[in-house]
Amino acid sequence: MRLSQLFTKTLKQPPKDEVSISSKYLIQAGFVDKLMAGVYSYLPLGFLVLKNIERIIREEMLAIGAQEIFMPSLTPKEIWEKTGRWEIFTDLYKFKDAGNKDFALAATHEEVIVPLVKKYIKSYKDLPCGIFQIQNKFRSELRVKSGLIRGREFLMKDLYSFHQDEDDLNNYYDQVINTYQKIFKRVGIDQQTVLTIASGGTFSKFSHEFQTISSAGEDLIYLCEKCKVAINKEIVNEQKKCSICNGKNLKAKKSIEVGNIFKLMDKYTKPFSLFYQNEKGQNKLILMGSYGLGLSRLMATIIEINHDKNGMIWPKAVSPFQIHLIDLDNNKLSEELYNKLKDQGFTVIFDDRDLSAGEKFKDADLLGIRVRLISSKRLKDKLEIKFRDEAKIKINNLANVINELKHYYYNV
Amino acid sequence: MRLSQLFTKTLKQPPKDEVSISSKYLIQAGFVDKLMAGVYSYLPLGFLVLKNIERIIREEMLAIGAQEIFMPSLTPKEIWEKTGRWEIFTDLYKFKDAGNKDFALAATHEEVIVPLVKKYIKSYKDLPCGIFQIQNKFRSELRVKSGLIRGREFLMKDLYSFHQDEDDLNNYYDQVINTYQKIFKRVGIDQQTVLTIASGGTFSKFSHEFQTISSAGEDLIYLCEKCKVAINKEIVNEQKKCSICNGKNLKAKKSIEVGNIFKLMDKYTKPFSLFYQNEKGQNKLILMGSYGLGLSRLMATIIEINHDKNGMIWPKAVSPFQIHLIDLDNNKLSEELYNKLKDQGFTVIFDDRDLSAGEKFKDADLLGIRVRLISSKRLKDKLEIKFRDEAKIKINNLANVINELKHYYYNV
Repeated sequence: MRLSQLFTKTLKQPPKDEVSISSKYLIQAGFVDKLMAGVYSYLPLGFLVLKNIERIIREEMLAIGAQEIFMPSLTPKEIWEKTGRWEIFTDLYKFKDAGNKDFALAATHEEVIVPLVKKYIKSYKDLPCGIFQIQNKFRSELRVKSGLIRGREFLMKDLYSFHQDEDDLNNYYDQVINTYQKIFKRVGIDQQTVLTIASGGTFSKFSHEFQTISSAGEDLIYLCEKCKVAINKEIVNEQKKCSICNGKNLKAKKSIEVGNIFKLMDKYTKPFSLFYQNEKGQNKLILMGSYGLGLSRLMATIIEINHDKNGMIWPKAVSPFQIHLIDLDNNKLSEELYNKLKDQGFTVIFDDRDLSAGEKFKDADLLGIRVRLISSKRLKDKLEIKFRDEAKIKINNLANVINELKHYYYNV
Repeated sequence: MRLSQLFTKTLKQPPKDEVSISSKYLIQAGFVDKLMAGVYSYLPLGFLVLKNIERIIREEMLAIGAQEIFMPSLTPKEIWEKTGRWEIFTDLYKFKDAGNKDFALAATHEEVIVPLVKKYIKSYKDLPCGIFQIQNKFRSELRVKSGLIRGREFLMKDLYSFHQDEDDLNNYYDQVINTYQKIFKRVGIDQQTVLTIASGGTFSKFSHEFQTISSAGEDLIYLCEKCKVAINKEIVNEQKKCSICNGKNLKAKKSIEVGNIFKLMDKYTKPFSLFYQNEKGQNKLILMGSYGLGLSRLMATIIEINHDKNGMIWPKAVSPFQIHLIDLDNNKLSEELYNKLKDQGFTVIFDDRDLSAGEKFKDADLLGIRVRLISSKRLKDKLEIKFRDEAKIKINNLANVINELKHYYYNV
């Protein structure tokens, strides 16, 4: 893509009404725009990042055999009354239409998916079953201050699993933990993200969160640095030691909850009478797990832990582009280079604007693409290559640059 | 994908509470599920169709240089007051949160995108500009009866374009007409879809709709069969003749509005003071076009015009799978065939269930994949091939079947 044609532009200053560094940079660089507190538009560059995160999550969900669907946001009062959440779930946006019918905007989808699967899942042969979607969620929050980290509307992956018994649920749950860790590794936040024991609610002893350690976090966890496992502040008084090594040297850390997973047991299957018939022909309640992962929150979290004073530094797999190509002086070779790099299969953003070198370099740092290539008349048929997180600048010919980038991006 | 693992199952009977044949078949085949009137979940097979439609639309939008973004559904009252639509747009779902703040669920996005682009588009150099999204829309309709054709929540592509002057808007508008016709061809409804002159609202003389002729339609158009152009019933009294050949022999036809496009002129740019600076340094109002296309409605429309008494018949490009492979009798070759077909790059749904041949054939007809392949012990190393819309059954070896299918799907 050509920067001259991108409709967004970088802003000279970060917005003053944002607190978190991720929201400041994402808005300043034109990745997102704030419509109101907690509600954002994803602009072309931010949309590409979201799509990359979505692709990674989808691949990992399909890899464990989960099936993708897409449920509505508009839901009738009746399903929430069935589970008792119409009254107690204060995060729900609720409203009536002109015909006096009551609706809620789905903040989560247990109440939709349980009666849905009841139409199809009848026998032990249909179990286990994992079903996920990637979709907007709505949560009524009166005060929002952390930008994309906690929104009123946000993009989320929610996976639901259905099981014959607790053993099967436990196995699946452990598999999802493993899958989440793969996802965090692929999006580049695995080093800072720890499995955290949290309250299990009314239905099981514990749930688990994935918490990314960051000063921008609204959560507080107690981390065992040896085991890289933590305990959420809600339950730290019950569990004053590490659940793995029993060590008592837990350190308080601010963190962002990027995922949470629950063994829901029969909490939602019971009100909807979701039974299966076992091998002996007996009807048994299906047990259930639910597994959330926020895509827009992940995007912000990635920047909270991957930036410097000049801007963002995107991990390879989620970057909107692989190469930021800058033409310095209307070099006639630049167009050719742009096309050759694309022909090699790289995604390229091409700064073909009529701006000074200084302005272009500043934007390149802010946008945070890992590889910056400079084309200039003075370099003749060579290119300058610089990695976003290194100071060193090298000069090389196109063939060598392509080989280096193939190695960098694909390890070949 | 294996049918034994798909969590949905076909229903013996179509649902009694649906009127349109598309909704009956889509629900009976497990492509969608109704949560309430006008609100549906897309299940794995239906989700694949939606993704195919989305891919085609995205490719055609990117081909005309439009840039993809993703705007929120939750919008503040203020932006709708600015254009006067808070009061007069009766389709809006409106509500307050606990802090008494007023929200509307976006039924369209002019009020979001105009102040958004105002932050970036300042000069004639930034124009023209096309921006689109693919996103859920919400419309408060008290009575909904046409299934997926007219929903309260539905998936839509909306494109907005911005221009210096009317000539530029007109050129872009004509280009979008051309692009829409390409899309309708690719999704397999071009033969039945006609450009229709409709009311232009308060801001321009005419708008255009794309109407697909179908007995399931809620619209009425007056068609010139010679020119394949129509006039919407709202304005037929003004225009009693074909706009191309002036012929007066117009035929009334029921139809489904699959797309609508508007020259909005300055209707929305004026209230938000969206100006650009021209070459002479003068400030001028930007002119605007908007172009809608319903994805979920398209999915239903495709089936309205592509079905028979046994079920759906998916056009090639949007079909959830290319091949429906049926194992008849636990033939040990079936697994191998399944893998070989996938290795050739085909998408395959494999009926490996323990059911009778009759049940499997019935489901295959209902699901509507174009190519049915039968694997059976009696066929030895051969396969039976049948196309969904032909009665003829042929027997051939795998190599020949693969060649035939490559020709069928890729014209090679």
